[in-house]
Amino acid sequence: MPGKLFLIPNLIAPDAWQTLSPQVLQILPGITYFLAEDLKNARRFLSALKIMGPIENLQFELFDKNTDKKTIHTLLEPLKAGYDVGVLSDSGCPGVADPGALAVAYAHQINAEVIPLVGPSSILLALMASGLNGQCFAFQGYLPIENEKRAKAIKEFEKESAKRKQTQLFIETPYRNTTTFAELVKHLQSSTKLTVAYTITSASQFIKTKPVSEWRKTSLAFEKEPCVFLFLSE
Amino acid sequence: MPGKLFLIPNLIAPDAWQTLSPQVLQILPGITYFLAEDLKNARRFLSALKIMGPIENLQFELFDKNTDKKTIHTLLEPLKAGYDVGVLSDSGCPGVADPGALAVAYAHQINAEVIPLVGPSSILLALMASGLNGQCFAFQGYLPIENEKRAKAIKEFEKESAKRKQTQLFIETPYRNTTTFAELVKHLQSSTKLTVAYTITSASQFIKTKPVSEWRKTSLAFEKEPCVFLFLSE
Repeated sequence: MPGKLFLIPNLIAPDAWQTLSPQVLQILPGITYFLAEDLKNARRFLSALKIMGPIENLQFELFDKNTDKKTIHTLLEPLKAGYDVGVLSDSGCPGVADPGALAVAYAHQINAEVIPLVGPSSILLALMASGLNGQCFAFQGYLPIENEKRAKAIKEFEKESAKRKQTQLFIETPYRNTTTFAELVKHLQSSTKLTVAYTITSASQFIKTKPVSEWRKTSLAFEKEPCVFLFLSE
Repeated sequence: MPGKLFLIPNLIAPDAWQTLSPQVLQILPGITYFLAEDLKNARRFLSALKIMGPIENLQFELFDKNTDKKTIHTLLEPLKAGYDVGVLSDSGCPGVADPGALAVAYAHQINAEVIPLVGPSSILLALMASGLNGQCFAFQGYLPIENEKRAKAIKEFEKESAKRKQTQLFIETPYRNTTTFAELVKHLQSSTKLTVAYTITSASQFIKTKPVSEWRKTSLAFEKEPCVFLFLSE
């Protein structure tokens, strides 16, 4: 019998411990084997929780966006051998805009139980707090970096939003926030509703929805934090 | 100054209290005004938490999928007047496959702070545990009920999944689970990966991903629980 694969969310703002569910704290002390997006961060996170026993008794394997599909069965040998394994994200929920899917797919193949634990997801929280359509939405990852391609993508996603009443969600890396915001405001229709959400779950959390026409009058001082952008054509 | 609008998740399985974040328990005792999807359930939920003081001191307004947009400003008068208001879901997260968006949109209009709290979402948990693509996904709500339209929708969403490597997510009401599963298995390609997820966060949680060819050999005894279906064309 294989072990269980636990998917373990991590904080999305420093010290926002109150966003981790008790479920995570219950399950973690029973796990010895971890796949982690960043080994140093994983050890720091588990140490800070003060529930794990000696950290040198735990076994970590690196598992990030560069992990080759072919190595998964080696990384997950303990799972196959009957041990529980935790997939530990660096920020947010494993498998959602984050590595995780490869490990989960392998667990399903060997018929291991997969148990997702409750924790913060910037995408889900931004959608909840946007006031945009939560009955129909699409997460598109990152916009293209190249100017012409990005402009084209923004316009196409806006058309689709209008056609299906579908909220469009994107993420952006901090150093491109300002550019992406400027491009969205430039290329979207005035009446389209745009949400800007960053530092979610922190004390300085910023989540605002306005028509593009109003954003055009607003200057935005972005924090150095990953940002979620959402829009809905109305 | 308006108050704050708190978005309060609710359990998605009976007695799964360990899935509610401490954040929810911290914030709730400070709230007197609630918009609730079901008044009886809301009172029962808050009473069970044993953190609220006398329940008769709290004020509840019904806010569900039938709530008229025109009445929102009346329902949220306390928010405008400076009081914090909680939007309380019956199950899962307000605003995601759930009422909430109208209240949030109004809060943004009057410049009230909107604060989404962390809790269980069957859609997010199912996506995490599916092993399907979490870098690009679309939530489509319910499939059409009428046979011909449903078959057409399944095939169209599968084409889109193939074209964009986009995971497609749907929810279904318990009494249509068996039909919807049969139709998915019938109309999807053999190699498409299909996830069936129900009673998430309960002890009897079921989350499995298999190619459609394998599902065709499987009989599935559905619980009387809402189900999330996901697929990815490969």
